[in-house]
Amino acid sequence: MVLDYTKEYKKKTKTSAKLFSKSAKLHVNGVSHNIRFYEPYPFVVKKSAGKNLVDVDSNKYTDYWMGHWALILGHGPKAVKQNLEKQIKKSWMYGTVNEQTIQLSELISKAVPVAEKIRYVTSGTEATMYAVRLARSVSGRKVIAKIDGGWHGYTSDLLKSVNWPFSESESSGVVNEEQIVSIPYNDLEKSLSILKKYSKDLAGVIIEPVLGGGGCIPADPDYLKGIQEFCKKNNSLFILDEIVTGFRFRFGCIYPTMKLDPDIVTLGKIVGGGMAIGVMCGKKEIMEIADTTGKKKSERSYVGGGTFSANPASMVAGFSTLNHLKSKKSIYSKINELGKFARKEIGNVFDGKVAVTGKGSLFMTHFLKDGITEITNSSQAAKCDVGLLTKYHFKMISHDGIFFLPGKLGAISDEHSKEDVKKIIKASGDFIC
Amino acid sequence: MVLDYTKEYKKKTKTSAKLFSKSAKLHVNGVSHNIRFYEPYPFVVKKSAGKNLVDVDSNKYTDYWMGHWALILGHGPKAVKQNLEKQIKKSWMYGTVNEQTIQLSELISKAVPVAEKIRYVTSGTEATMYAVRLARSVSGRKVIAKIDGGWHGYTSDLLKSVNWPFSESESSGVVNEEQIVSIPYNDLEKSLSILKKYSKDLAGVIIEPVLGGGGCIPADPDYLKGIQEFCKKNNSLFILDEIVTGFRFRFGCIYPTMKLDPDIVTLGKIVGGGMAIGVMCGKKEIMEIADTTGKKKSERSYVGGGTFSANPASMVAGFSTLNHLKSKKSIYSKINELGKFARKEIGNVFDGKVAVTGKGSLFMTHFLKDGITEITNSSQAAKCDVGLLTKYHFKMISHDGIFFLPGKLGAISDEHSKEDVKKIIKASGDFIC
Repeated sequence: MVLDYTKEYKKKTKTSAKLFSKSAKLHVNGVSHNIRFYEPYPFVVKKSAGKNLVDVDSNKYTDYWMGHWALILGHGPKAVKQNLEKQIKKSWMYGTVNEQTIQLSELISKAVPVAEKIRYVTSGTEATMYAVRLARSVSGRKVIAKIDGGWHGYTSDLLKSVNWPFSESESSGVVNEEQIVSIPYNDLEKSLSILKKYSKDLAGVIIEPVLGGGGCIPADPDYLKGIQEFCKKNNSLFILDEIVTGFRFRFGCIYPTMKLDPDIVTLGKIVGGGMAIGVMCGKKEIMEIADTTGKKKSERSYVGGGTFSANPASMVAGFSTLNHLKSKKSIYSKINELGKFARKEIGNVFDGKVAVTGKGSLFMTHFLKDGITEITNSSQAAKCDVGLLTKYHFKMISHDGIFFLPGKLGAISDEHSKEDVKKIIKASGDFIC
Repeated sequence: MVLDYTKEYKKKTKTSAKLFSKSAKLHVNGVSHNIRFYEPYPFVVKKSAGKNLVDVDSNKYTDYWMGHWALILGHGPKAVKQNLEKQIKKSWMYGTVNEQTIQLSELISKAVPVAEKIRYVTSGTEATMYAVRLARSVSGRKVIAKIDGGWHGYTSDLLKSVNWPFSESESSGVVNEEQIVSIPYNDLEKSLSILKKYSKDLAGVIIEPVLGGGGCIPADPDYLKGIQEFCKKNNSLFILDEIVTGFRFRFGCIYPTMKLDPDIVTLGKIVGGGMAIGVMCGKKEIMEIADTTGKKKSERSYVGGGTFSANPASMVAGFSTLNHLKSKKSIYSKINELGKFARKEIGNVFDGKVAVTGKGSLFMTHFLKDGITEITNSSQAAKCDVGLLTKYHFKMISHDGIFFLPGKLGAISDEHSKEDVKKIIKASGDFIC
């Protein structure tokens, strides 16, 4: 039996309740991101520091949501804060070419071999939108393939097969779903048979090397190699969405560790140090189709930037984060080890009732049911007991001072310790299921 | 004869030349927004303060680009900086519901009557993308009408008829142009005749009440009223894109001054105080289609937010900006007057050779040719001598320490004075044409 922690939560979060009812009057469902809402109401944050979120009732939570997994150095890390404060003194918006952008790009281009040319945008949603547009421009074709359960932000160009059941439209009001094809993750044979059907029209394939929103599931390197091989032969672009994985497991992207050779890579989250960012980067001859100078409208790929692209605050926060990660690479071995420990011990404490997926510092607990014994794709993840996962996370929020966004994966930062992870394991042991 | 100022520019911007050549190796065309490039190379900014941009060669420019027209209080205004610094100390990213968002929304919802419900996103491009999606969801129809020369960011859903010639596709790699219909600005009869043809399929019409990128051209209120009337009768959504105009001319949007009643309004720029923001707001019954709780996928409009939506840095910068504008409404009369003065005097100095368009603190010079005598739409603006405008702006950059992004409109901030505007007029008098 699972205890109901709602009473305990409500008792602790009275100021949040009041403020959230205000928020609910002002905002659609009270939030500015659908997933930030959970029942009975999300707590309202007052401040954050290091590993902690502090709510308006002064409850402190060890945070594993960590700013949508962007905050690899924790909340407000000193190494970033100092430089960001200096930049804010100089200004936070120029609207022009600036030194700070060049500095960040020098770091990224050295760490990410495919980043021969970079374009900063404002969000991950924009970055994947542009990657799709560029693939269509380069190939002269229209169809984009994505993964069942793959999540690339809310761009109209990739808003399909995100949530279970994948065959059902994600939303009313979308118009070009017929140009999006979906393939099953980690099933090369089936994926290739679908891609072959669309080969003449296939502009590109976009894949997260570790599914993020789709269940924290690493790709089999041979799967990615097989898709890449097909793309190269078919003159379709092979696009890796490393918005979650870039600089998460090592200083750079994950794709070189699998000996992959993508045409375009999208980045975000960590490379902005917590400030708004999206990055599209890729091979020179491909990226240059987006150069508008001297091209007819029909020849160019009209790729933007935006009012806030390459703003100095994002550039400095990103640079400071990457620079710190570069100078202290032990961070990666530490947080990757902690992730491994979390996966193993959470698995142990639930004694076969769960599968804990992930890689490096990312981990997610899946309560197995309906004969599912392993999680290698989003269909399996969706068939697990998502309701129970939400209750498990809510119990930790209410009772243990531990915050996972209910139902979502956890990200370990440099601010977390083995003691913190042990607290998750203890809290998991208390959770009756 | 127009003098060539390239030599003078190059002499002054040697460090910029070096840094920009680095930037050109790293980035597509050296920039992260197409319009930020100009020949022979854009200067590279080191810092900004008040009305000024300072480049890496320590040249100082009185700035009228003002962060893509976002910085109504100038660069790094004290009223915003102090609060932003405090917020950076507390953290710049929570990833959760926070107090700062509620504070900004309370200000916006009081000032913008139609903002019964608000959703923050990360950029203007995202805001207009969601507005289109919502219009399609609410109406169950697919076609969106926009203005010839209307600019709503790079979203695939509105990437048509942006640049002259409007009938030509804007880009390779776009797929749903057939769902976008374009109508001529300020020509009600022709616009209605086009809209009538699509009436059964028309989800909505999106219009900037003052064309921004399209030439700084105010709409005739009767034009907007006529389009609105058609929309209401036709059950199509009437969407006003006030990303440029919101809080630019008065404390609130421009639409109430024209007694309009839009269904959805998009905001950005000023309301983020120079930090990344996009806002979609509108009537409760419409916005609530975006509430995902308890709805089937096909019933909802899948409207996002994003990793950075409602981040506390943007919320605090936006709140501080609006709060300052609210407490000191004389700012609007001051900058609106300066804009009027600029339009009149620039017109005088060029003695019938130009039309200076705009409204309030926004103004743009058009060098008339080919029999064009007035500018009421983007077609007329496009037929003017855009090359000469670029030279005019470049002359001021090179010779007068005045920065307009070449070819674009100018925005006056609270940091500008009548003396500054007089310097533009003097610099205009020097420009031989």
